[in-house]
Amino acid sequence: MEPVIHEEGAIIEYMQHQYLLGIDIGGTSVKLGLFTQTGQLVNKWSIPTDKSKKGAFIVRDIAASVREQLAAEGIKQTQCIGAGVGVPGFVDIENGCVDFAVNIGWKDYPIVDILSDSLGIPTAVDNDANLAAAGEYWQGAGVGAENIVLFTLGTGVGGGVIVKGDIVHGSSGMGGEVGHVTVIPEGGAPCNCHKTGCLETVASATGIVRLAKEQAEKHKQSLLYAKKEQETLTAKAVFEAAASGDSAAESVIDESIYYLGLAAANIANVLNPEKIVIGGGVAQAGEQLLAPLRRHYRTFALENVYNDTAFTLAELGNDAGVTGAAWLAKTYAAGKK
Amino acid sequence: MEPVIHEEGAIIEYMQHQYLLGIDIGGTSVKLGLFTQTGQLVNKWSIPTDKSKKGAFIVRDIAASVREQLAAEGIKQTQCIGAGVGVPGFVDIENGCVDFAVNIGWKDYPIVDILSDSLGIPTAVDNDANLAAAGEYWQGAGVGAENIVLFTLGTGVGGGVIVKGDIVHGSSGMGGEVGHVTVIPEGGAPCNCHKTGCLETVASATGIVRLAKEQAEKHKQSLLYAKKEQETLTAKAVFEAAASGDSAAESVIDESIYYLGLAAANIANVLNPEKIVIGGGVAQAGEQLLAPLRRHYRTFALENVYNDTAFTLAELGNDAGVTGAAWLAKTYAAGKK
Repeated sequence: MEPVIHEEGAIIEYMQHQYLLGIDIGGTSVKLGLFTQTGQLVNKWSIPTDKSKKGAFIVRDIAASVREQLAAEGIKQTQCIGAGVGVPGFVDIENGCVDFAVNIGWKDYPIVDILSDSLGIPTAVDNDANLAAAGEYWQGAGVGAENIVLFTLGTGVGGGVIVKGDIVHGSSGMGGEVGHVTVIPEGGAPCNCHKTGCLETVASATGIVRLAKEQAEKHKQSLLYAKKEQETLTAKAVFEAAASGDSAAESVIDESIYYLGLAAANIANVLNPEKIVIGGGVAQAGEQLLAPLRRHYRTFALENVYNDTAFTLAELGNDAGVTGAAWLAKTYAAGKK
Repeated sequence: MEPVIHEEGAIIEYMQHQYLLGIDIGGTSVKLGLFTQTGQLVNKWSIPTDKSKKGAFIVRDIAASVREQLAAEGIKQTQCIGAGVGVPGFVDIENGCVDFAVNIGWKDYPIVDILSDSLGIPTAVDNDANLAAAGEYWQGAGVGAENIVLFTLGTGVGGGVIVKGDIVHGSSGMGGEVGHVTVIPEGGAPCNCHKTGCLETVASATGIVRLAKEQAEKHKQSLLYAKKEQETLTAKAVFEAAASGDSAAESVIDESIYYLGLAAANIANVLNPEKIVIGGGVAQAGEQLLAPLRRHYRTFALENVYNDTAFTLAELGNDAGVTGAAWLAKTYAAGKK
């Protein structure tokens, strides 16, 4: 596409309509979103993730889909001033390279070079969990705070940390691994990370179900046991059983949230965030989760730290990743032009 | 002092000799240091802290001492481009106000306005523990790293956290309270912060002595017990007894460092620092502390986090505070002119 020489009025018109592209690559689908510079979502869509040939076609598919979508919206490629992309794996953000993304098949994959070439748009990359935190910070539950901690309670426990309005990466991008804070130093369950007793082993949906199965065996009169026998024992079912007064389920929820409160307080004693944001499927329990979380947090947080912290549910759901990717585009890709 | 109009050569001469003033206010003495802009210490000195009249004379004394010292060095006040001051207490850095410094007597004390007026130099303030971390980061054990965690193991456990080359303050300046990470969630000893089971209760010199007394009572044949009876049971004595093979002392040291490793790993799983720096009196144990610390840290840190982390002893000793204060002067006071 040749650059067009605009007259003065046209340049102003053009400046007023600049967009950011957020891309969130997952194991089954790639989510895409077109945002204004102030973070309003103009359009979102998704395409399947083609994992064949070690993910070699993913960028081609993204680029084709973006061109098609921009054409349909009547937006020129040059109006997209930056793209951000989130990847589920280890990312070398400085070199724009995915070191390892096991769900996708990428290894030492120079995503930024390849994607920015294909799109014709300056591109930056980060880990998808970090970008979910950035998305909530920019347009979701974290708005108004400069320091937030996000716990995403799903199959595992992911998350991310924002300090002074920027993602905490640490020395090699391992920052923000809140799910692998050790909450049971001795005798904890094995974690996928090869340690034991991580927060993930007790506060993920999987961890809650594991605790519930243990508790059910001890209380065969419990609703928990009945659900276990019916093979309907999900994290949601445990919260429901607790809400209906099943004491075995109540003790599982309390144990799980006790450890979440301990981990959150220990992080907060070091980072003193304004907001702790809880997302992921388990966060659907809402106040049934937040109320005991505040209580356990209070036990382990310094008094001033406790007083400073608001607990809140994530607001962006599945859009957190693309929103954070657009934030990344705004912050880095646009800034580095 | 009237500004002098320099000729061109004189201006260049003047630009080449600009200094930073670091001030570290403690309960018994105020340490002062004059630094070049690249962090070289030109001169350091100290004056007693006059705590009478709720600390009302401290700033007057500092200003008089600085004037005298600059005159003796033949340095004009205008060559001091910034001053930084560290205060042991709760500091509102944005408003330049000490909310509360119990050892000194200040409460809601607008230190930045008062000190910059008295000195005639732009001034910035921060908590003294944060500035010790900044000092090690700038000129000490942290050189070369952008992300460090400092544990100062003394009477208590202080410290500070540097992320991306800046102090972590959090929402109200409570950031970096690494001594109050809870390492014994149930049944821990009471801490000065009104919680129980904080790292400070087991990894400070005081905490080590407390553990040693408990252990001595269980092992009356131990060297530890003998030292307890002689009333010579200090943290240093416990390390010495362990070094000489006293198994009771060894178990105390191992327990204390186990908890330090747990706290350090949990902070590092979130912040992924390049360096963890150990300072304070207990750090004089050197490799006797660092070797088991690395081992326990490895148990609780993610593998990549472990691989990224160098453990190192603090290098600046009592100069960390004034050095960090000079860094603050460079970073903030000078920058905001």
